[in-house]
Amino acid sequence: MNQVNKNNCDLQTFGTVVGFREDVKVLDCTVRDGGLINSHHFDDGFVKAVYATCVAAGIHYMELGYKGSKKIFAPAKYGIWKYCDEDDIRRIVGDNKTGTKLSVMADVERTDYHTDILPKNKSVIDLIRVATYIHQIPTAIDMIKDAHDKGYETTVNLMAVSIVSDKDLYDALELFVTSPVDTIYLVDSFGSFFPKQVREMTAKFREIVKGTDKQIGIHAHNNQQLAYANTIDALIYGASLLDVTINGMGRGAGNCPMELLLGFLKNPRFDLRPVLECIQKTFVPLRHQMKWGYAIPYMIGGQLNQHPRAAIEVVEGQHPDDFLAFYDRVIQEES
Amino acid sequence: MNQVNKNNCDLQTFGTVVGFREDVKVLDCTVRDGGLINSHHFDDGFVKAVYATCVAAGIHYMELGYKGSKKIFAPAKYGIWKYCDEDDIRRIVGDNKTGTKLSVMADVERTDYHTDILPKNKSVIDLIRVATYIHQIPTAIDMIKDAHDKGYETTVNLMAVSIVSDKDLYDALELFVTSPVDTIYLVDSFGSFFPKQVREMTAKFREIVKGTDKQIGIHAHNNQQLAYANTIDALIYGASLLDVTINGMGRGAGNCPMELLLGFLKNPRFDLRPVLECIQKTFVPLRHQMKWGYAIPYMIGGQLNQHPRAAIEVVEGQHPDDFLAFYDRVIQEES
Repeated sequence: MNQVNKNNCDLQTFGTVVGFREDVKVLDCTVRDGGLINSHHFDDGFVKAVYATCVAAGIHYMELGYKGSKKIFAPAKYGIWKYCDEDDIRRIVGDNKTGTKLSVMADVERTDYHTDILPKNKSVIDLIRVATYIHQIPTAIDMIKDAHDKGYETTVNLMAVSIVSDKDLYDALELFVTSPVDTIYLVDSFGSFFPKQVREMTAKFREIVKGTDKQIGIHAHNNQQLAYANTIDALIYGASLLDVTINGMGRGAGNCPMELLLGFLKNPRFDLRPVLECIQKTFVPLRHQMKWGYAIPYMIGGQLNQHPRAAIEVVEGQHPDDFLAFYDRVIQEES
Repeated sequence: MNQVNKNNCDLQTFGTVVGFREDVKVLDCTVRDGGLINSHHFDDGFVKAVYATCVAAGIHYMELGYKGSKKIFAPAKYGIWKYCDEDDIRRIVGDNKTGTKLSVMADVERTDYHTDILPKNKSVIDLIRVATYIHQIPTAIDMIKDAHDKGYETTVNLMAVSIVSDKDLYDALELFVTSPVDTIYLVDSFGSFFPKQVREMTAKFREIVKGTDKQIGIHAHNNQQLAYANTIDALIYGASLLDVTINGMGRGAGNCPMELLLGFLKNPRFDLRPVLECIQKTFVPLRHQMKWGYAIPYMIGGQLNQHPRAAIEVVEGQHPDDFLAFYDRVIQEES
């Protein structure tokens, strides 16, 4: 049915439903975003299962966690994937002789990047993803340069874009364009964007990187059941690097599920079966210990463009189904 | 953020994210599509709760069920909302002196429409929705004429469009355009359409009804977590009548949730609060008795463009989490 309207504007863009683009790459951030649920206390068995699944499914990148500063985040409080020490990673992946590259996230002002990010020739990590808020851009750019100079691929993930003005956003993008960063991410931290907005923003991001070899990435959240839709529309409008998590695991409403996205992508390198196997064997049992995925309090937060913090408290609290009290409270606070 | 790209193709279309269109109307089909889960055995209390919610929330239409033939469907086997007798409806709505109109669905070849659909002046029903498969179009058109002549508003809902060829689809649409039907529906019966396809098809539907006063409707299913995304993209590309159900209740993966759609629509007639209240008080307890909503077997069926029948058997069976066996089975059957 995708040839119905030959003059449709989508055909000015990058995607059809039956082919595939070589530039499109999938990044699994299950262990990193999922770690926000349990303070990164995953055992090796879980991380190995996710790694084996990513390799078998043809996923391009797997993100293991954060490069958190041990001065700021006391190791007594967090699991090892808050820090992603080289030895811990190698215990899972060895020298990683696979088709799946490895990534870690480095938060601005929460990473001792000069010391904790090793030169690339001493690390099995391939990609450093710098996560920044709008008021931290100069430090983010210094971190990008540091990682780039050490020999890594880099992305910059500007968070909470939905509460940033257009002017500030485009000023930030102009700075990123002059940096050595490889991929600039559109991050829907609050799960508040509609697909129409994602299409328009992705097109604008592409306009800004035009003439460079930089690419666009998309990281979506499922607060309004739109993570998958937003991801495939970003793809069609020009995003190349697509974040997913197995079974949608991630903080609050979670992320774009890998299993859904692989149903859209037609690149023969991908295989859905190992993902389904991993969900069945590893994630279904885990749901007794960890909570993630769409729920009405997240919808309310997404509709109001709010940080999911308050909704998480409701969903993980004593009265997860008392939507009405939560709604009345946030509506009052809005005024 | 929706003014980012002033030349974006979406601006050739019908929607912005901040305004609203007077032509956009919402149709609740909770009792009708939800009835497919429990053979329409809802008690009066439930139907009254849905009705009160629709009225309080500003919903334009509420659908009560089917006008099923009692010769074909033995009344011993089904609840009363399989037939929607006038007396049963009036017990819920009286003379319905509200802002919410009432609708029923009439399946081609399964409705004794000449006798069971009363003249409008004897009925509290406002809208007859004729549901048809592609091979039943002439009878569907006869039913539309019958309902129109009796004084009703009408829609035609062409089901399973995702397995109909473009040629047959547009031949059917041309016939509908010459009929007295008010609204022509795009129905994603198998939850298999991607938003890009919905945008292209809605644009094509609009092209076909151009110059008439006919409108486009959208009925989505949530097999791939795309029911809401597909509904709002159909809206932006020109659909006016939008099907929803409270809490997404409906057969299999369910439908576009009313609570999500009201978060997108900006018409001040809508009120989200009574919907949240109804979910909390009526739908949360019901989840112990009835199953609906997204699950991985539905995703597999949606990805393969199949009727949800087989996936429902898995989800309602002894091993709802044995995705892998289901996947292996349907992949084998595909070949």
